Amino acid sequence: MDFAYDAVTEDYRARLTSFMDAHVYPAEASWESAGWSPPPGLRALQSAAREAGLWNLFLPGEHGAGLTNLQYAPLAEITGRSPAIAPAALNCAAPDTGNMELLAEFGSAEQQRRWLRPLLDGEIRSAFAMTEPQVASSDATTIGTRIERDGDEYVITGRKFYISGAMNPACAVFIVMGKTDPGADRHRQQSMVLVPRDTPGVTVERGMTVFGYDDGDHGGHAEISFDRVRVPVSNLIGAEGAGFAIAQARLGPGRIHHCMRLVGMAERALELMCVRALTRSPFGRPLAEQGVVREWIAESRVRIEQARLLVLKAAWLMDTVGNRGAHTEIQAIKIIVPAAVEWIVDKAVQTHGAAGVGQDTPLARLWSQARVLRLADGPDEVHKRSLARRELDRHRR
Amino acid sequence: MDFAYDAVTEDYRARLTSFMDAHVYPAEASWESAGWSPPPGLRALQSAAREAGLWNLFLPGEHGAGLTNLQYAPLAEITGRSPAIAPAALNCAAPDTGNMELLAEFGSAEQQRRWLRPLLDGEIRSAFAMTEPQVASSDATTIGTRIERDGDEYVITGRKFYISGAMNPACAVFIVMGKTDPGADRHRQQSMVLVPRDTPGVTVERGMTVFGYDDGDHGGHAEISFDRVRVPVSNLIGAEGAGFAIAQARLGPGRIHHCMRLVGMAERALELMCVRALTRSPFGRPLAEQGVVREWIAESRVRIEQARLLVLKAAWLMDTVGNRGAHTEIQAIKIIVPAAVEWIVDKAVQTHGAAGVGQDTPLARLWSQARVLRLADGPDEVHKRSLARRELDRHRR
Amino acid sequence: MDFAYDAVTEDYRARLTSFMDAHVYPAEASWESAGWSPPPGLRALQSAAREAGLWNLFLPGEHGAGLTNLQYAPLAEITGRSPAIAPAALNCAAPDTGNMELLAEFGSAEQQRRWLRPLLDGEIRSAFAMTEPQVASSDATTIGTRIERDGDEYVITGRKFYISGAMNPACAVFIVMGKTDPGADRHRQQSMVLVPRDTPGVTVERGMTVFGYDDGDHGGHAEISFDRVRVPVSNLIGAEGAGFAIAQARLGPGRIHHCMRLVGMAERALELMCVRALTRSPFGRPLAEQGVVREWIAESRVRIEQARLLVLKAAWLMDTVGNRGAHTEIQAIKIIVPAAVEWIVDKAVQTHGAAGVGQDTPLARLWSQARVLRLADGPDEVHKRSLARRELDRHRR
Amino acid sequence: MDFAYDAVTEDYRARLTSFMDAHVYPAEASWESAGWSPPPGLRALQSAAREAGLWNLFLPGEHGAGLTNLQYAPLAEITGRSPAIAPAALNCAAPDTGNMELLAEFGSAEQQRRWLRPLLDGEIRSAFAMTEPQVASSDATTIGTRIERDGDEYVITGRKFYISGAMNPACAVFIVMGKTDPGADRHRQQSMVLVPRDTPGVTVERGMTVFGYDDGDHGGHAEISFDRVRVPVSNLIGAEGAGFAIAQARLGPGRIHHCMRLVGMAERALELMCVRALTRSPFGRPLAEQGVVREWIAESRVRIEQARLLVLKAAWLMDTVGNRGAHTEIQAIKIIVPAAVEWIVDKAVQTHGAAGVGQDTPLARLWSQARVLRLADGPDEVHKRSLARRELDRHRR
Repeated sequence: MDFAYDAVTEDYRARLTSFMDAHVYPAEASWESAGWSPPPGLRALQSAAREAGLWNLFLPGEHGAGLTNLQYAPLAEITGRSPAIAPAALNCAAPDTGNMELLAEFGSAEQQRRWLRPLLDGEIRSAFAMTEPQVASSDATTIGTRIERDGDEYVITGRKFYISGAMNPACAVFIVMGKTDPGADRHRQQSMVLVPRDTPGVTVERGMTVFGYDDGDHGGHAEISFDRVRVPVSNLIGAEGAGFAIAQARLGPGRIHHCMRLVGMAERALELMCVRALTRSPFGRPLAEQGVVREWIAESRVRIEQARLLVLKAAWLMDTVGNRGAHTEIQAIKIIVPAAVEWIVDKAVQTHGAAGVGQDTPLARLWSQARVLRLADGPDEVHKRSLARRELDRHRR
Repeated sequence: MDFAYDAVTEDYRARLTSFMDAHVYPAEASWESAGWSPPPGLRALQSAAREAGLWNLFLPGEHGAGLTNLQYAPLAEITGRSPAIAPAALNCAAPDTGNMELLAEFGSAEQQRRWLRPLLDGEIRSAFAMTEPQVASSDATTIGTRIERDGDEYVITGRKFYISGAMNPACAVFIVMGKTDPGADRHRQQSMVLVPRDTPGVTVERGMTVFGYDDGDHGGHAEISFDRVRVPVSNLIGAEGAGFAIAQARLGPGRIHHCMRLVGMAERALELMCVRALTRSPFGRPLAEQGVVREWIAESRVRIEQARLLVLKAAWLMDTVGNRGAHTEIQAIKIIVPAAVEWIVDKAVQTHGAAGVGQDTPLARLWSQARVLRLADGPDEVHKRSLARRELDRHRR
Repeated sequence: MDFAYDAVTEDYRARLTSFMDAHVYPAEASWESAGWSPPPGLRALQSAAREAGLWNLFLPGEHGAGLTNLQYAPLAEITGRSPAIAPAALNCAAPDTGNMELLAEFGSAEQQRRWLRPLLDGEIRSAFAMTEPQVASSDATTIGTRIERDGDEYVITGRKFYISGAMNPACAVFIVMGKTDPGADRHRQQSMVLVPRDTPGVTVERGMTVFGYDDGDHGGHAEISFDRVRVPVSNLIGAEGAGFAIAQARLGPGRIHHCMRLVGMAERALELMCVRALTRSPFGRPLAEQGVVREWIAESRVRIEQARLLVLKAAWLMDTVGNRGAHTEIQAIKIIVPAAVEWIVDKAVQTHGAAGVGQDTPLARLWSQARVLRLADGPDEVHKRSLARRELDRHRR
Repeated sequence: MDFAYDAVTEDYRARLTSFMDAHVYPAEASWESAGWSPPPGLRALQSAAREAGLWNLFLPGEHGAGLTNLQYAPLAEITGRSPAIAPAALNCAAPDTGNMELLAEFGSAEQQRRWLRPLLDGEIRSAFAMTEPQVASSDATTIGTRIERDGDEYVITGRKFYISGAMNPACAVFIVMGKTDPGADRHRQQSMVLVPRDTPGVTVERGMTVFGYDDGDHGGHAEISFDRVRVPVSNLIGAEGAGFAIAQARLGPGRIHHCMRLVGMAERALELMCVRALTRSPFGRPLAEQGVVREWIAESRVRIEQARLLVLKAAWLMDTVGNRGAHTEIQAIKIIVPAAVEWIVDKAVQTHGAAGVGQDTPLARLWSQARVLRLADGPDEVHKRSLARRELDRHRR
């Protein structure tokens, strides 16, 4: 047992920290973007990141930097300190990371050439269209979108919402989950197809907000309708009926990434809380000397340490025994990390008074991002129920 | 001891409930307003309210409906069920209610003629400019804005932020708190003056957001600078040095109103939670049959009952023994009600999944309103400290 | 709506407070009793209470003081400040209060003569034997004890545990719940019979502890076996099959009593917390000036106020619309009051350091009493589920 | 970074688990001991442990098993599953472990011969007498006990309470902390001396309870008075004025041990909760299928995983960078682990109903042990304040 990062990780951490100081934090003045568009200056940041060897760090294998989950996790944490800018600058932003992993693992050579390559080069963005307005997003078996074969084409009809990144003008393609065979076994009904954004029948209906934010930094969430949209059968990813399995495979690393970025957000919020506490003195006494604020700070530090260790262990398990062996830990981080970080950011907001809820600090926006992750990929409660079932199974006779 | 509303209250409750059904809820489709402007159709709603005898209910005395705090509180609750529309429709919206109370109690005849009258008639709106960016809003003694007498005029210089309602084009006047005598006793340094919005030197610098919302329904919060703004000395409210005392007097009823509206918001959120729980069945079983959701519903009901009773008791104390005798209870409701309602709305959001965080239900916006009231009028922690001091004083020897 | 106690209540409150000061608090040095026996000096206290007109206050109607629930509740609160002594001194201690109510309402003239009279006179104590080791105490339909008619006798066989007060040597009779007709409707299977303690076949197997306490102040909980115990059929209370309904009727007032005593315990704990905070100064600063302790004190005060109001409203509803109309509120106080008081006492313990967990303050024992009431009469979770169901029913179509 | 235990640890874990199964769990029927005495059969268990090579595992260096903190921690966890028996059986029970470490590091050869040797052999027990009734136990600088030199002797006068293990008849010696020089610097006033229990002037005044328990399994806590007790100067441990520093050194490993035993207790409680949930079906449905119980189980699992990782990291830091470098983590585990385990055990109690609060499961006693560790070595709040100060210091300019 060893709690130190390895040399490769430490080298990347040092270089990434320098990059954050030199390029990312200075760009934050433009944090509050103007509507559904990428932050200004993104291209320049991306060039700098490539030059610094900080590109596609998330991706294992020959397509990416080749890091393990355990090596990449601490880097994701650092990018989480400036979540609107750093992940995009390093081409490590959701939902593209999951889509690139998916195409790298399950895409055909042609699909990789046409979509993975430009994604890896940061030339286009993508979206993952699974959630639907009329069904529980936590239950993939209830998806209503139909994907029906008609000769050499699939015909797609359905409605998706909260499709992250789809409002981004650079978003060129959607990976759409739908049912090809509603009569098959529950987990063999779904398939995934690539749908270029400009395909006839695709309508981006509207942008959707998250606690008042348009989340424009990654392009924003969209409601999208698919009305008899036709794509060639070669746009199918993997086999028919493999959609559920592919979606599950996509989740594991995504959870690590999300959770480590959240840990970084929490570190940022704690820093802001400490600085504010040291510099404000209502009623003639620094906030930093008030017991309740100290309790928040201590509690925040302890929760961050616990959260980070659990995510790192989950990453280590994924590397050593695979997604399935890490199942409990992957659910555990989904359950605990967003809730812990939401709590920490809330206290940072409270320490800032009115300034904490508005646009002059990143806190209110960070809060909304932590909050929404208590819902994304299914609400916490679904994961708790599932984790408990496995715990109970160990005691059945 | 008697827990039943009196006949006057019950009559108003019945009529107000009818008004909500007939006029307010149907107008909610236009809930999500387009920027810093009053909701469409407001004038028509206001006319209907006046005709229904539901106008200026908040105001005791001859200027208003003449209700006690205990009689008005249950009506404020009902308006809280649709907080973007109902209070404005009834001319019972913050911050104007507090400003009207203040002018009714402390304004000169001329001030009442010029400002109170059109406010009572719903012709103009107003704002209360106390909070400043550089000082703790919870500590009025640190206010930096200067109000200096120069002949027959006061010259005002300073900067205010999070001035609610000031973005509203209908907002015609600000009540500005500043220091006339920084050398006086801590609570005798402040004064209040009326500053018409169009006075030279007044600049509305920008709108300020609350968790991504512009709070456009009441006009939105503004940052405002006052650069050697001149008003006649007759614009002083009350005496020089009376600003702190007037601000304190303004707080009591405001807290009752805010807290009862929050109780109404919580009832609304609980309704939405129940309906959602009855109509969604992920994994083949209605949410309404899942234990965790039931626990949320039960806990919400209990918290609402407790919150309402405490607010009603505070209102009763204000009516029977005055603001000072109700001090502990007024602090207590400020401490407990926003936190309880935030918790309830959070659970309603969680029950709705992605739909709960966006613009298709009022929940995310309700949440932001509850959250910000944990900060407004000073953060909860200030009130807890003060309440504890009084509790401890009872045991000192 | 009126939040003031009526004149009768205020008169009793004043006299009871005097009695506490003169008789009860001075007796607390003997709080830590020596095993399964009533506290020393109890008889003298009871005589003093009778003389002071403070006897059987809990009992409405001609048998008792004739107070309403709303009038008695504030008196129960005062006795809760010294729960091991005051309720027993006033002949208002559980479980006898519930048993006396039951006999007064459902007992035959003969039962009242033989058992109710000496109970009202404080000559004997009694116990209520419902909970069983092998079944969920929250679900009365699963009771295993059999009560079978054999000629002019009932034959009782079963095992009960956590029968409060049964270890008391003065406990002369058990009210035993069992099934007379397992084939009847779910709520018509149970009956209640009076079983004198010295009946052959009754064995008090052992005393049972509650977090290390024997609860000797009321006599202590027992495990009791009934092995073909025979009593005359005239010992049946009410009709055969009425046991469930009688048990339900017994619960309402009992919850009010328990909850108001808990409110009194919380007031006592808060007092002790304040005094301790004012008199201890680790690291050179009184605990009373430390923010976290102040937060505990403020939060405690707010929770107490909320809890009291909700219990009083439940009592008022029972008086005005009956048990059934007060159903939601009676469940609500069961859910919220023990949990709130447990929290408050925990903070008082923490403020006292090591002294808080031992025998030198009443706190650790008070804590155990609050804790166990999260379980007694069924765990909180059962009541939450039931309350939620009713809330949901209002929204079904 | 590596989350797997090393081979030595795994070997010990396997052997210790076998020992628990063969010897410890079967002995638990005698869990509820009869007063201030060691559990029956302890000697036989100790012999078996020595034979199995499971003796003095806690002690690094040549006197003990020579394990690192990181290697011992997982073994302490296993002993925590049966905390009244296993630690004593393995001679790894508090407070002797800390006393042995102290004597091994700071004791003279003569002190080691006379006291350490029989302690290592399990022939005697010992106690650590620091806490006093009149001063805050969290602030060692306020200790009132005096240790005054008089020729070749120290004269000790003072009063100690909650001295764990001192009620044990086998307890032969106290390590007493007192002030030798009240005029010295705050942290140089204290010294430690060895006081044999049978020294004239030593009076064990009474046993002290913890939530009703006498904690007889380790002998029980005592209040002890020292009335001009004389010991030779050779009984001084280390130098005069070194008492504070030695006490600090004693704390680090003790915290690891306590916290890992707590993790073991939590695992045990979770097991009991799962088994109960699977075997009880109130209202016709297993508790294991009820959402609230599942939430408790999931939350318990996540909290245990987080707690264990943080304790292991603290142990690793102690091994690699020493006590001082592990300061934050050692405080962090003191803050989070007792609170987390208290929460988990509370839920296990609740799942058991009345059976959970009494003597038929270990749960109520486990709860009291977790609860008291929120106070032992200073209340959580002191540690939070200190941890926060260090966090804030990183942001001072």
